[in-house]
Amino acid sequence: MKKRIRDYGIRIGDHPAGALNKLTDVPGVRVGHYTVDTEEHKTGVTVILPCEENIFASRLTAAAFVHNGFGKTAGIPQIEELGTLESPIALTNTLNVGKVHDALVDYMVEQCERDGVELTSMNPVVGECNDASLNKITERVIGIPEVRAAIDGACRDFEEGDVGAGKGTTCFGMKGGIGSASRLVELDGKTYVVGVLVQSNFGKTKHFVLDGKPMGELLSGKIEEARKDEGSIMMVVGTDLPVSDRQLKRIIRRAGVGLSRCGSFMGHGSGDIMLGFSTGNVYRKEEDRAVIPAAVMNEAMLDDVFEAAAEATEEAVLNSLAAAHTVTGYKGNTRYSLTDLYLKDL
Amino acid sequence: MKKRIRDYGIRIGDHPAGALNKLTDVPGVRVGHYTVDTEEHKTGVTVILPCEENIFASRLTAAAFVHNGFGKTAGIPQIEELGTLESPIALTNTLNVGKVHDALVDYMVEQCERDGVELTSMNPVVGECNDASLNKITERVIGIPEVRAAIDGACRDFEEGDVGAGKGTTCFGMKGGIGSASRLVELDGKTYVVGVLVQSNFGKTKHFVLDGKPMGELLSGKIEEARKDEGSIMMVVGTDLPVSDRQLKRIIRRAGVGLSRCGSFMGHGSGDIMLGFSTGNVYRKEEDRAVIPAAVMNEAMLDDVFEAAAEATEEAVLNSLAAAHTVTGYKGNTRYSLTDLYLKDL
Amino acid sequence: MKKRIRDYGIRIGDHPAGALNKLTDVPGVRVGHYTVDTEEHKTGVTVILPCEENIFASRLTAAAFVHNGFGKTAGIPQIEELGTLESPIALTNTLNVGKVHDALVDYMVEQCERDGVELTSMNPVVGECNDASLNKITERVIGIPEVRAAIDGACRDFEEGDVGAGKGTTCFGMKGGIGSASRLVELDGKTYVVGVLVQSNFGKTKHFVLDGKPMGELLSGKIEEARKDEGSIMMVVGTDLPVSDRQLKRIIRRAGVGLSRCGSFMGHGSGDIMLGFSTGNVYRKEEDRAVIPAAVMNEAMLDDVFEAAAEATEEAVLNSLAAAHTVTGYKGNTRYSLTDLYLKDL
Amino acid sequence: MKKRIRDYGIRIGDHPAGALNKLTDVPGVRVGHYTVDTEEHKTGVTVILPCEENIFASRLTAAAFVHNGFGKTAGIPQIEELGTLESPIALTNTLNVGKVHDALVDYMVEQCERDGVELTSMNPVVGECNDASLNKITERVIGIPEVRAAIDGACRDFEEGDVGAGKGTTCFGMKGGIGSASRLVELDGKTYVVGVLVQSNFGKTKHFVLDGKPMGELLSGKIEEARKDEGSIMMVVGTDLPVSDRQLKRIIRRAGVGLSRCGSFMGHGSGDIMLGFSTGNVYRKEEDRAVIPAAVMNEAMLDDVFEAAAEATEEAVLNSLAAAHTVTGYKGNTRYSLTDLYLKDL
Repeated sequence: MKKRIRDYGIRIGDHPAGALNKLTDVPGVRVGHYTVDTEEHKTGVTVILPCEENIFASRLTAAAFVHNGFGKTAGIPQIEELGTLESPIALTNTLNVGKVHDALVDYMVEQCERDGVELTSMNPVVGECNDASLNKITERVIGIPEVRAAIDGACRDFEEGDVGAGKGTTCFGMKGGIGSASRLVELDGKTYVVGVLVQSNFGKTKHFVLDGKPMGELLSGKIEEARKDEGSIMMVVGTDLPVSDRQLKRIIRRAGVGLSRCGSFMGHGSGDIMLGFSTGNVYRKEEDRAVIPAAVMNEAMLDDVFEAAAEATEEAVLNSLAAAHTVTGYKGNTRYSLTDLYLKDL
Repeated sequence: MKKRIRDYGIRIGDHPAGALNKLTDVPGVRVGHYTVDTEEHKTGVTVILPCEENIFASRLTAAAFVHNGFGKTAGIPQIEELGTLESPIALTNTLNVGKVHDALVDYMVEQCERDGVELTSMNPVVGECNDASLNKITERVIGIPEVRAAIDGACRDFEEGDVGAGKGTTCFGMKGGIGSASRLVELDGKTYVVGVLVQSNFGKTKHFVLDGKPMGELLSGKIEEARKDEGSIMMVVGTDLPVSDRQLKRIIRRAGVGLSRCGSFMGHGSGDIMLGFSTGNVYRKEEDRAVIPAAVMNEAMLDDVFEAAAEATEEAVLNSLAAAHTVTGYKGNTRYSLTDLYLKDL
Repeated sequence: MKKRIRDYGIRIGDHPAGALNKLTDVPGVRVGHYTVDTEEHKTGVTVILPCEENIFASRLTAAAFVHNGFGKTAGIPQIEELGTLESPIALTNTLNVGKVHDALVDYMVEQCERDGVELTSMNPVVGECNDASLNKITERVIGIPEVRAAIDGACRDFEEGDVGAGKGTTCFGMKGGIGSASRLVELDGKTYVVGVLVQSNFGKTKHFVLDGKPMGELLSGKIEEARKDEGSIMMVVGTDLPVSDRQLKRIIRRAGVGLSRCGSFMGHGSGDIMLGFSTGNVYRKEEDRAVIPAAVMNEAMLDDVFEAAAEATEEAVLNSLAAAHTVTGYKGNTRYSLTDLYLKDL
Repeated sequence: MKKRIRDYGIRIGDHPAGALNKLTDVPGVRVGHYTVDTEEHKTGVTVILPCEENIFASRLTAAAFVHNGFGKTAGIPQIEELGTLESPIALTNTLNVGKVHDALVDYMVEQCERDGVELTSMNPVVGECNDASLNKITERVIGIPEVRAAIDGACRDFEEGDVGAGKGTTCFGMKGGIGSASRLVELDGKTYVVGVLVQSNFGKTKHFVLDGKPMGELLSGKIEEARKDEGSIMMVVGTDLPVSDRQLKRIIRRAGVGLSRCGSFMGHGSGDIMLGFSTGNVYRKEEDRAVIPAAVMNEAMLDDVFEAAAEATEEAVLNSLAAAHTVTGYKGNTRYSLTDLYLKDL
């Protein structure tokens, strides 16, 4: 069983975590991976299913924030305009965005046919990181069957580390990958979840900070240093808090605080993108009322939620490192795991 | 009594107007002017009071859109972040923004002291147009007493044309000013209002279009042509529709359609700014619930509202022209009214 | 030979057109189509090649503006962040964005291998309109071979109307399609080109305006009216003017003025997106200087360029209508051409 | 002589500082303060003069970024549209923005009359923090004479700490104020400066991090804790690097990284705003060429500049704390200095 950062006695922040300490603590959310692990290809796809209903028929409140836009995420303009999500969120490698985009269309067309929902337009959301240092990225090995397999395998207690879209990523010069964490926030006597899932692929080795402790010097002798902050990080934030899309955008921006705490300086070449969804307000395609009741947060009480998002992002990045194995991939390149480099000695 | 564009048999668009055909058809809204009319100074201030309550204690949903940002409107960043309005909206001349800003602070401090509301921070919203061709603008003659007088005189059936912040403005080379219009939209059997107030100060003479009819040729022989589209237009959109701030931003963007229909091409030098508020969702400063009920529009039913905003803006611009008199101001410059140039012969 | 709107004696605006009166008047630009024309499928792809060099190695200044974001255009976040274009621009149908995205990757990977340029990341730009009323859109019939064929057939004097990505589109309830126009602007004694290409698929029938003349009433009796403004329009603006990306964004926003002049009110369901590129500043991937000379426009002289963009967009929309044939497609739906409905009688 | 953070042996980051280690290491930049220090009023104004020329006649490249928009900074829309700065930048308290805005107009009108430059429109830039815990903010004691005095006293080796606009601010529950730092970046054998000046007024006590070391626990017993991150921080970044406005915006966003390193989580109530200017490209009002040569950075080499901006911001915040004295102000409230609380014992 892979260990997580808490298994080493490291606790990030003040807010309590959810039961799984994962994005899937948000009720209804599931995550699935498909991993390609051949000599030339270390890559994959990770799909987040934000709700159990047909999401095209029952849209969720959504937001996107471009922290640094050297990235190819698809689907942002419509999220910005309409404030809703009508597609699962898939993460993959940079050059595979098109094929995964098409696979999401394929999946939703089938879902909608099955559910008797008319679909002639939909907005697939696909994020990406560049895994070219371990993966022969130009070959684009993720297509419809791989995305389907990821969806079919979606569950609540999903794996982290070098799996799915995190199979080939590099973080601070070490093996990065998929990581997740969650925080609980109590409001009006009710408990809500803020969950984060990251695909980590960013950072200069000398900048890495582990729970406030600078690790650069220790690591730089042991590995081939990442001398640039390039490669990207996708940060997906989910919550069951009823918020407006504007409020959600404010919340997901705080993922950038968590990122800074890990040592990111928002390098030029790193596409740092936040995507967020809330299951707290659902908009039905078949809605026939002109005015719809909704619920929003009291703006003055958002600070706990902001802190939760920052903390969960920091811990999600650390989990992506802690859960990853050392991987040797394309052209024999190797990325060592934080566990092999440091954690195992704790 | 000043005439409006409908008095000449000209009807803009398909949607019915409200009782006054003004912004103040939105329940609770009042508008006041203070006009400075001396040989050197043709300028003023126009204040929009969006509700009867203390707006700092009972904030309204708000949005801003910068159609062309060669302008000095104050207050936009906080509207963008929080989606609320906590101040009356004042319009004045470009160099007077600071003093009018201070006057709004002065007014709200007094209001809040009176109402027992703590105020140590507030976001005054001040828009502007440049009236330097008729007004010795560098002297900034609008201050606290003038703003107070405008507020004290606020009413529902306010004047249009060369009054208040419109005293010295120029539109398509003619005398511009304050204009207003409204449209009614029926939703779920209930009638809502979309009202617009403009301060018109933009446009090249040869581009002027009156209800679809190109007027450039006719006008260009009669007046000193405006050869540049510079000077700005402020467009304030109010509604009682319950909308989210994102939806409101979508609605106020359609004011740009009305503007284009009048002949604007968004000239470089024209600060074209939309501000919007909705009385449909109010956020109390003293709110102690963490989660608040709100209401939003069914996104798929917004088109009528979009059309209403475009139509009301077009008619508001035409009313600003129709209600204005010919004015001779600073350095003897004269701006002829559309009435003197054309409408009187209809 | 298809006729264009000028062939009917209709001239839009004041600025002179280029030799072809097309986007391809910008030196180096070529456009190619691939059209699918079966009983069930009326769709295609249109590819704009903005320069003769390998664009991944020699990036152009670029900008994007989301006029109304109910659309799925891919590639915008990176254009916003970096202000450059590193890919051809492809237009297709909504559900085909993913496969066309992948085809652009495929093409650029091959180009770069041929040219000895390393490519492990690139930002394909794909725009779309929804042609579901004439095309069985869920089947996504455009892939790598079709995109390749469009690229291989790219030329300067490309076709307009119901071809390529315009095969199945609908505009104001009539047959829309691909249209183009250009304007010449003289600056410092040198002549520059502003060219526009549109994929038209928007508009309510009753709103259609032909060179200032309202056509709604005339058309509404003849065809099944479009009662909603949905479907989208892609507007691609190219120029050889040396501008900064911010200036280019200002320029392409004025395409919205042209759109309004045709009768658009920016309907909720219409993804109205502007993309722009300038060949006036090129950024080499292999650049090794830290500080690079560039050239920008004198901001105060942009108005002619703004007008040129507005005029060329209006004429491009009209050309998309004038060049289209009546088309009967999926489920026997028919869209009549403006020529059959009106122009042939002029 | 006030000490700075380096005087305690604390060095932030890797890049060398300029000669003064202040914003004024950028050639031509001067900074002046006017401080109000009465029993009821602890406030002031700080003015940044970005160049020696008349800035209205010789505009600088500029950018603004709203990190968290609960703030009242004036002047941002025009900076966003035009990418230039035509005014000094003044910082003051929240409710004094209007009067300081007017004072900048007053100053520039006089400057332009003196220099024979026509001025009928200008865009004053005024930032603010809320100093209400030490200052009777509703009285707005900063006006034209105070701003003039600040400008007249502007120099290169300006004071930090509880002076000018920093007289009444609070940072992490301690006395905040004005702080500055700079970094040198070598490019193509030439040395450029990135300088930062902050007005610090943000942060929860328990979050304060001093050069990577968490200080919350140590401080929380000694002072009345700040339990909210509210109050704001203004971050002004200047450079002599020739950059485009888009590049400058990317650079100033990295001030947010420095802020996070100090312990900010971008609290709801904190208006966190970045303003930037570059003296590397100047745009003359009297320019008569249509196409103007400029210079931009090689985008791929921006990382050092990003790191410089992050480091200088972190150090500027620490200098604002290190240089401040303990201050007792309005209603007898006291804010203790970091020196008294901790640094003096080092």
